[in-house]
Amino acid sequence: MARIVMKFGGTSVGDIDRIKAAALRVKQEVDAGNEVAVVVSAMSGETNRLVDLARAASPMHDAREYDVVVASGEQVTIGLMAMALQAVGVHARSWLGWQVPVHTTDVHSSARITGIDTDEIIRRFGEGQVAVVAGFQGVAPNGRITTLGRGGSDTSAVALAAALQADRCDIYTDVDGVYTTDPRIVPAARKLARITYEEMLELASLGAKVLQTRSVELAMNHGVRIHVRSSFSDEPGTLVVDEEEIVEQQMVNGVTYAPNEAKITLRKVADRPGVSAGIFGPLADANINVDMIVQNVSEDGATTDLTFTVPRDSLDRALKVLDGVRDEVQWSELTADPNVVKVSIVGVGMRSHVGVAKTMFRALAEKGINIQVITTSEIKVSVLIGADYTELAVRALHSAFELDAA
Amino acid sequence: MARIVMKFGGTSVGDIDRIKAAALRVKQEVDAGNEVAVVVSAMSGETNRLVDLARAASPMHDAREYDVVVASGEQVTIGLMAMALQAVGVHARSWLGWQVPVHTTDVHSSARITGIDTDEIIRRFGEGQVAVVAGFQGVAPNGRITTLGRGGSDTSAVALAAALQADRCDIYTDVDGVYTTDPRIVPAARKLARITYEEMLELASLGAKVLQTRSVELAMNHGVRIHVRSSFSDEPGTLVVDEEEIVEQQMVNGVTYAPNEAKITLRKVADRPGVSAGIFGPLADANINVDMIVQNVSEDGATTDLTFTVPRDSLDRALKVLDGVRDEVQWSELTADPNVVKVSIVGVGMRSHVGVAKTMFRALAEKGINIQVITTSEIKVSVLIGADYTELAVRALHSAFELDAA
Repeated sequence: MARIVMKFGGTSVGDIDRIKAAALRVKQEVDAGNEVAVVVSAMSGETNRLVDLARAASPMHDAREYDVVVASGEQVTIGLMAMALQAVGVHARSWLGWQVPVHTTDVHSSARITGIDTDEIIRRFGEGQVAVVAGFQGVAPNGRITTLGRGGSDTSAVALAAALQADRCDIYTDVDGVYTTDPRIVPAARKLARITYEEMLELASLGAKVLQTRSVELAMNHGVRIHVRSSFSDEPGTLVVDEEEIVEQQMVNGVTYAPNEAKITLRKVADRPGVSAGIFGPLADANINVDMIVQNVSEDGATTDLTFTVPRDSLDRALKVLDGVRDEVQWSELTADPNVVKVSIVGVGMRSHVGVAKTMFRALAEKGINIQVITTSEIKVSVLIGADYTELAVRALHSAFELDAA
Repeated sequence: MARIVMKFGGTSVGDIDRIKAAALRVKQEVDAGNEVAVVVSAMSGETNRLVDLARAASPMHDAREYDVVVASGEQVTIGLMAMALQAVGVHARSWLGWQVPVHTTDVHSSARITGIDTDEIIRRFGEGQVAVVAGFQGVAPNGRITTLGRGGSDTSAVALAAALQADRCDIYTDVDGVYTTDPRIVPAARKLARITYEEMLELASLGAKVLQTRSVELAMNHGVRIHVRSSFSDEPGTLVVDEEEIVEQQMVNGVTYAPNEAKITLRKVADRPGVSAGIFGPLADANINVDMIVQNVSEDGATTDLTFTVPRDSLDRALKVLDGVRDEVQWSELTADPNVVKVSIVGVGMRSHVGVAKTMFRALAEKGINIQVITTSEIKVSVLIGADYTELAVRALHSAFELDAA
């Protein structure tokens, strides 16, 4: 007997037939003697519909009221899922965020879970009852409904698994696991049987949309074993686990790319203390997320060239912010390029293998791809290149690190 | 300054533009210095969509889970209404049933309100805040979501008005008041400026869909003044008030008809104690609502003829129940007629006027309409006639009681 959390995303509960199919998967686990908590998202398309209604009601809406509106999507799904489970003979009941309760901060529309009371759910496990819990939502200290931000149901599932000390957290989604890269670009991409939390975290934050970043952080911190798998097949998916569980480590496990970047370069910035703060402080205040930053001494030796990236849809705002600080900071020239992409290689094996960056740069050079910016972390090397070279670069790196399926 | 409850039905909040229009009506009342609580239904069509989903998930669904699903409709509307109010500068917040809380029994999908805690809402009135409360829903003693049954938002509004000791409960709907009869049948039907609770109760239970029956009972018991009016015009609607407030009483104030009736006649039923219980007990046990009942001595003097009506969609079930008790009860012949309609005249003036029934029967006789069953109450006379004669009878009665508009 195991205790498991099963999470079904929007497409996995996208219509009544899929909800019924998901209920049969739950029944299998129950029949096998397991204690099961089910976490569900809103039916696919539903959250977008609700967000559109909220925008139409008021473009500058109150986040508290927004949460009331959008949390209704998961409410519908838990009721339907509980019914579908009962219809196949599974003892089940639904739980809204405030009923569990799932306690959160009061930062509406991007709240963080602060604690989950699981006593009653565990007591009912003892009576053979399945708990069907609304993902994405919780309750603030003042009793108002909160939501966790888009994709928050993954976080709900992992947090519930941690609170329940579950043996496993199965994330059912519309892909069948985590791949070495985007199979639409590289048909020879391979599904990974296992991946470490650290790698998954890099992939998640780099744009792979399989799991929400925060859910992976949470899983890593609490040692929750995640199994990412397809709700449309019985094939095993990808286990997201601790590094120690992976015996044979590849040097690189994934090649990923983040489109929708934009590059800003400031030439001949006065090189004196406080300049960086004078630029990045106002950008942060404007809620603009600066990613890669590279600073080089200029040819003249007295000034510096500064290059950094921002999300493409923040570019106009970023330029406006910079315009406001130009007199104070001072530079000779500003160039902005929205046609860039960040391509990264990820692998915990980098820690023990040398020459990874060299292999990467050589592979790109052989294809004539110019590298504009480089940043590295312990388990990742990222390069900024022209957007036109995205597919070429991803394919070259996938081959160079021998990730292509046999 | 007055304290008022404003209730907007499904068509009055049917899309974002209508929600914004409703918000402007609320703003008018707020700007006039009034304390306002707004009660809203689900956007029109939404409850049906949710009910269909629940049916598709499981035909024999758990009423507790059904309530979780359908209560989400009002949740969406309160959030949108609060946003729309804020957008026009009105200080407002939404309240779900469990947040107020609106306490109910645990009879899911047809729960009754047992109490409403209004302290916090009244405190916020003092801060100029409008309360936007979800109609149709409440919370059971065990913390699960309940709903009040179709049309329950009227009841929510009246119960809230009673708990708040509001000066007025304005029901905004898609008709502009209560009419002497259905204007689709009698173009000369008149809108009533005032109607008594008792009359409204008869009209509501007889099929006029303006207000839910229970909401009228509640208003009568607590002396809540209801104003039924259109959300699409500024014309005054119909006040539903105490009899004492109506000085000049008409003999008859309304002619109404209830289609979807069916008549069952049992010939030569053994006339002995316990026979009625032997018939109507099992029908009640099967949840079949028996309405008009007439019993006559048969020609032979030793047996009795029994005629009664049931809802047309319960007829098949009723016949099955009767088949099961036939050996015990015994009768010579059973006839069933689904083509009947109940036409009624209603008016508190009947108490002080004689000859009302005579006028009714003569008017019908003059048109050659055969009366099959008659029942009366203090302020109502109902007749069962062939369904084909519905319009003819309604028009004849509307004229006979001089209700036609000048």
